[in-house]
Amino acid sequence: MNGAGNLMDFLDEPFPDVGTYEDFHTIDWLREKSRDTDRHRKITSKSKESLWELIKSLLDAWSGWVVMLLIGLLSGTLAGVIDLAVDWMTDLKEGVCLSAFWYSHEQCCWTSNETTFDDRDKCPQWQKWAELMTGHAEGAGAYVLNYFLYVLWALLFSFLAVSLVRVFAPYACGSGIPEIKTILSGFIIRGYLGKWTLLIKTVTLVLAVSSGLSLGKEGPLVHVACCCGNLFCSLFSKYSKNEGKRREVLSAAAAAGVSVAFGAPIGGVLFSLEEVSYYFPLKTLWRSFFAALVAAFTLRSINPFGNSRLVLFYVEYHTPWYMAELVPFILLGVFGGLWGTLFIRANIAWCRRRKTTQLGKYPVLEVIAVTGITAVLAFPNPYTRRSTSELISELFNDCGALESSQLCDYINNPNMSRPVDDIPDRPAGPGVYNALWQLALALIFKIVITIFTFGMKIPSGLFIPSMAVGAIAGRIVGIAVEQMAYHHHDWIIFKNWCRPGADCVTPGLYAMVGAAACLGGVTRMTVSLVVIMFELTGGLEYIVPLMAAAVTSKWVADAFGKEGIYESHIQLNGYPYLDVRDEFTHRTLATDVMRPRRNDPPLAVLTQDSTTVEDVEALIKDTDYNGFPVVVSRESERLIGFVQRRDLTLAIKNARQKQDGVVSSSVVYFTEDAPQLPASNPQPLKLRRILNLSPFTVTDHTPMETVVDIFRKLGLRQCLVTRSGRLLGIITKKDVLRHMKREELYSADGVNSDHTAQLHQLSA
Amino acid sequence: MNGAGNLMDFLDEPFPDVGTYEDFHTIDWLREKSRDTDRHRKITSKSKESLWELIKSLLDAWSGWVVMLLIGLLSGTLAGVIDLAVDWMTDLKEGVCLSAFWYSHEQCCWTSNETTFDDRDKCPQWQKWAELMTGHAEGAGAYVLNYFLYVLWALLFSFLAVSLVRVFAPYACGSGIPEIKTILSGFIIRGYLGKWTLLIKTVTLVLAVSSGLSLGKEGPLVHVACCCGNLFCSLFSKYSKNEGKRREVLSAAAAAGVSVAFGAPIGGVLFSLEEVSYYFPLKTLWRSFFAALVAAFTLRSINPFGNSRLVLFYVEYHTPWYMAELVPFILLGVFGGLWGTLFIRANIAWCRRRKTTQLGKYPVLEVIAVTGITAVLAFPNPYTRRSTSELISELFNDCGALESSQLCDYINNPNMSRPVDDIPDRPAGPGVYNALWQLALALIFKIVITIFTFGMKIPSGLFIPSMAVGAIAGRIVGIAVEQMAYHHHDWIIFKNWCRPGADCVTPGLYAMVGAAACLGGVTRMTVSLVVIMFELTGGLEYIVPLMAAAVTSKWVADAFGKEGIYESHIQLNGYPYLDVRDEFTHRTLATDVMRPRRNDPPLAVLTQDSTTVEDVEALIKDTDYNGFPVVVSRESERLIGFVQRRDLTLAIKNARQKQDGVVSSSVVYFTEDAPQLPASNPQPLKLRRILNLSPFTVTDHTPMETVVDIFRKLGLRQCLVTRSGRLLGIITKKDVLRHMKREELYSADGVNSDHTAQLHQLSA
Repeated sequence: MNGAGNLMDFLDEPFPDVGTYEDFHTIDWLREKSRDTDRHRKITSKSKESLWELIKSLLDAWSGWVVMLLIGLLSGTLAGVIDLAVDWMTDLKEGVCLSAFWYSHEQCCWTSNETTFDDRDKCPQWQKWAELMTGHAEGAGAYVLNYFLYVLWALLFSFLAVSLVRVFAPYACGSGIPEIKTILSGFIIRGYLGKWTLLIKTVTLVLAVSSGLSLGKEGPLVHVACCCGNLFCSLFSKYSKNEGKRREVLSAAAAAGVSVAFGAPIGGVLFSLEEVSYYFPLKTLWRSFFAALVAAFTLRSINPFGNSRLVLFYVEYHTPWYMAELVPFILLGVFGGLWGTLFIRANIAWCRRRKTTQLGKYPVLEVIAVTGITAVLAFPNPYTRRSTSELISELFNDCGALESSQLCDYINNPNMSRPVDDIPDRPAGPGVYNALWQLALALIFKIVITIFTFGMKIPSGLFIPSMAVGAIAGRIVGIAVEQMAYHHHDWIIFKNWCRPGADCVTPGLYAMVGAAACLGGVTRMTVSLVVIMFELTGGLEYIVPLMAAAVTSKWVADAFGKEGIYESHIQLNGYPYLDVRDEFTHRTLATDVMRPRRNDPPLAVLTQDSTTVEDVEALIKDTDYNGFPVVVSRESERLIGFVQRRDLTLAIKNARQKQDGVVSSSVVYFTEDAPQLPASNPQPLKLRRILNLSPFTVTDHTPMETVVDIFRKLGLRQCLVTRSGRLLGIITKKDVLRHMKREELYSADGVNSDHTAQLHQLSA
Repeated sequence: MNGAGNLMDFLDEPFPDVGTYEDFHTIDWLREKSRDTDRHRKITSKSKESLWELIKSLLDAWSGWVVMLLIGLLSGTLAGVIDLAVDWMTDLKEGVCLSAFWYSHEQCCWTSNETTFDDRDKCPQWQKWAELMTGHAEGAGAYVLNYFLYVLWALLFSFLAVSLVRVFAPYACGSGIPEIKTILSGFIIRGYLGKWTLLIKTVTLVLAVSSGLSLGKEGPLVHVACCCGNLFCSLFSKYSKNEGKRREVLSAAAAAGVSVAFGAPIGGVLFSLEEVSYYFPLKTLWRSFFAALVAAFTLRSINPFGNSRLVLFYVEYHTPWYMAELVPFILLGVFGGLWGTLFIRANIAWCRRRKTTQLGKYPVLEVIAVTGITAVLAFPNPYTRRSTSELISELFNDCGALESSQLCDYINNPNMSRPVDDIPDRPAGPGVYNALWQLALALIFKIVITIFTFGMKIPSGLFIPSMAVGAIAGRIVGIAVEQMAYHHHDWIIFKNWCRPGADCVTPGLYAMVGAAACLGGVTRMTVSLVVIMFELTGGLEYIVPLMAAAVTSKWVADAFGKEGIYESHIQLNGYPYLDVRDEFTHRTLATDVMRPRRNDPPLAVLTQDSTTVEDVEALIKDTDYNGFPVVVSRESERLIGFVQRRDLTLAIKNARQKQDGVVSSSVVYFTEDAPQLPASNPQPLKLRRILNLSPFTVTDHTPMETVVDIFRKLGLRQCLVTRSGRLLGIITKKDVLRHMKREELYSADGVNSDHTAQLHQLSA
């Protein structure tokens, strides 16, 4: 019962901060889990004592659900507020509503009585800036003035955004998903999910999106939801005091974030499971689903899109797809994979340049410059001038009878000579050709500008820009296929495609498939991607095209490099993230990876009953290891346990202050009973309570693939290496990561990775 | 490089069967994984040698997708064939199609020209047996004759089913899900997924369902799909020779099974993830999704339901639900939870009785008796006479204008005096009251008979019966709420519920919510349940009612016992299944669980270089352990490795046959070099190649919760316990299971589980 007793002492936190972690350190999942079980056990045994304790234990059991509910409510509300604010501010760049300045263009004309159905966009209450200032709505002067004000507003918004981030919350920049992945895998980044980050990220996200930059709000919304999760964790000691439990809540919060971003709760949960989370027990799955649903319904009751729809891009298609269409769908998949590869490589190269050169020193200037270029180039093209989500929405849409879009400008003249009488009116009109040109230009513009935008010091997601690239490409392909099918309806492959009263093909579906392919190429999402897209359309009909494109895109992109954009950014920033998906296939053994290496000084160890306080302090001073193994004696080197550096420092400091007789020459002992010492010796210091008696060990012959598996699945910080009971060395998470990286490089260079001796020499 | 070298020898399979497992044994996940990595490594390095090897390596990489495609195609086809056969044979109990005897009732009248839309069920080609034999369609005589033949057919079908199972494939009985869960967790049950089981299960499933017994085809379809998976595994050595990889395929096959059972591919994948699988890497998630989709689309192209719909119960509702309706929904959840508890307890008690008493010796008689009772009681009630899926389908359906069902017999007289003019015609007519009585009787009948049916020696799933119970209860509640809302439409809570031209509430939705609640109570599915139901309706609208009912049902059922029906059956059958969801919260240490116990004989170990062949053979003969630790010497007890009993037996047998000079007194050594022996000694036998040099160890102070976690996550068979490098004992998976069970019992009895000393005494 010793171990349990000691564990007890240890968990009673004899002095403050024992058992917590320092910033930028990795947590020990097993210890966190064991602490939570202890907590749970205490509450359960107490609950039998009195009614009050029983109520407390019930409250404790329900706190998980309460946290989920709160996360859902807050993140849904925030998402709604962000949507409304973005709508308004995006339109503010072009004009203002005279009847109520806080109305967006759509709301303004919606509430106006003078709006006709055909011209839903036009109403006297909504005035463009030029009209308001000069009274002239048309003409070159008005155009230039509008242009100028559009750029000015964009610059103002982005300047505000970058300044707020710089001054108040540096962590609020970027998409946040790489960092959240790292945090969920067990890393501590203090303040990353703090209240300030939440506030500033919410505000600057609105500014950044409204400024018209090529970025989306989906990634940052995940960050915002995780901040909410972290905030509510602090209400319950169950979560605030346990880093492992806290991460369960954060996983669920990430699901809620995606759920509100797309209105796709199931997709959100799968995204959290597939892309973001590290430790995802089934209990978390169920709770994530709950949080995601609450968030989605909160968002719906705010109803920011004004259509009672949950989803961002609601579409309904009426035409079935044909087998032969799989060819263009797969081509779109290839395009998506290539775009993913290009984007990741170019973006990482640019971000590396930003990190290493002068460029990184002027983040505000960079944002201003990119915003300026974006705004100047975006204004002339109607497809880039509007917000990216509106663009995607239009590209996804089918051309209904009431659609006034340029993209739906088909020649509809009943008197024209038709090739055959019973096929529908689907020759493209001048509007479609015009739109095609503008879309092609928009495509090039988006591809280039997104590479430079993602990674700047403002909140920026890349779901929407990626989807936009894919949707543009897809729509172009879709219209091309449609025109081919129309003009060559007698070809065998197009037989029966065009029937009276129906479209030949659905160009909107191509846009959707393209969007899925591009998003898949960049993020390497698979199931969650298809499910999110499925939730947008609500029909299983179109899953096969989406799946074909997603599979192709992933294969093509994987052929050029296994890592998605998030993993690439994790690597770029050097976070200690052990990817679950990387397969480690090299034939190395624990002995090849462990420290000390062949020519290194011996491992820094403590002995169980012969080290003095002085020695320990010297060891702490001379080394920067996170912990030290404790052995029986230097001769036998049989392992007793492991002690954390932090705990050791605190314990000695504490003992020196409070415990009489503890001096530099006091012997530190980790055994049950004090060692037999001459009477002249000063009082020894017992440190068994900070000793971890169950350190994780593997033998030196354990294959590294097993070691990697153990590190991943058990979430270890370090692992001791023994041979027939003798301590040989230590492997830390960072050693594992370094080794994996090195093996990858060597096998890529064609060096035979089996030659571990060579490697030893190289790394020595 | 020793370890790797030895590993190499070992994996080259120096003599047959080394590295395979015996029947009813547990696999070593880590070893399987490591073997697969070796295989992969070999293929990769070979692929650089020639084009042919490169093609082979590409084929190998693609084989996973090929297997998934084949599984999808075959399980979709089988599901389609089963659906068609069940349709036909169910109708055969009542009558026959004269124009083509292989037509079911619906198909018969569908192809007939004399069918009118109002009387879709009646056509001259379809004749009931009495009409065919005696010429009279009506009257008491015809009724009795039809009754008699209905029972006779049912008895014939079930007799055939149980005989086929008994004679050809005993493993084909039951739902199969408990066994598949156990297999997926790493247990070997040879033949459980074999070709014979596949064939017989498919045939007998049709017979069993057609016989009208209260069972469904969903669980068995999962078994059938897993058999398909196993079948296709044998095509590729990658899967057939690696038990770990095989289980990845089986997980995906389970997803395909649920996908075809309900037409819900996403729900199927989540079911596999949540309910069935043990080791579910992300790669498997993606492939499962692929298999599930292929299966669903194969089924749709067979189109067994004749409506081009993918799903079993397609519904479309038109009325929104109101907040106040959550009260009945939650009540249905409570009902579902209670039903789940009742069913599990009663069914397990009955199955235990079957196992332990004479009853179990007459399985054929039992099936005949239950079928007889079922058929006799079912015929008079129209809701039990028809097939259960038809019943559920009718209960789920909304009463449209064209619905001719008794349940939709609302008084529709325009001349009647209405309470208020602007509310719809929703007073229940005599048909509805009649239906309510019949439904109430059907509910009691289904509840009782299902308890006795599940677990008989025929294929039987319980999704459909559970859903039927819930759907009946739900529909009754739904009609009650509807009538209350109609007659008391002036009450405040019912305000605005009934509007002109629309239904007041949707009783079909209540049926669906009830079905979800009951299914949840029995199986404890959560996310997958809601997602399957969501896929049936295709609208996020109704997720909140479903979720409310599912959550309530799970909480209520969990309050009475944590285990779902599958876990209960696993426990009943004593399979070594370590549930991922059970939380182990007791404060015991590895030292309390390990063997040998305090008063036991010491652990059976081998020494690295001083045991003789004779000693080893004696040890193998005297003990039945699955493996033996190897130590340096009996004095130092420092651990070197672990050797499997099976490998040891095979190696010694092999050496005795083939290696000269190996006699009983030969020394067996596990070291690198042969020990220094006197020249007179016979030639020693080197067995290092079967020695596992990286056995898993924990210290005696490791908390059991950590040990349980390690066993679960790494899929261990056994774990050695050491203290400061000395071997103390061993913990096997069965020890862990036994300990968990015991702790559970003791803590349930109020015995303080911390008193491990007491426990020791009790178990000694």
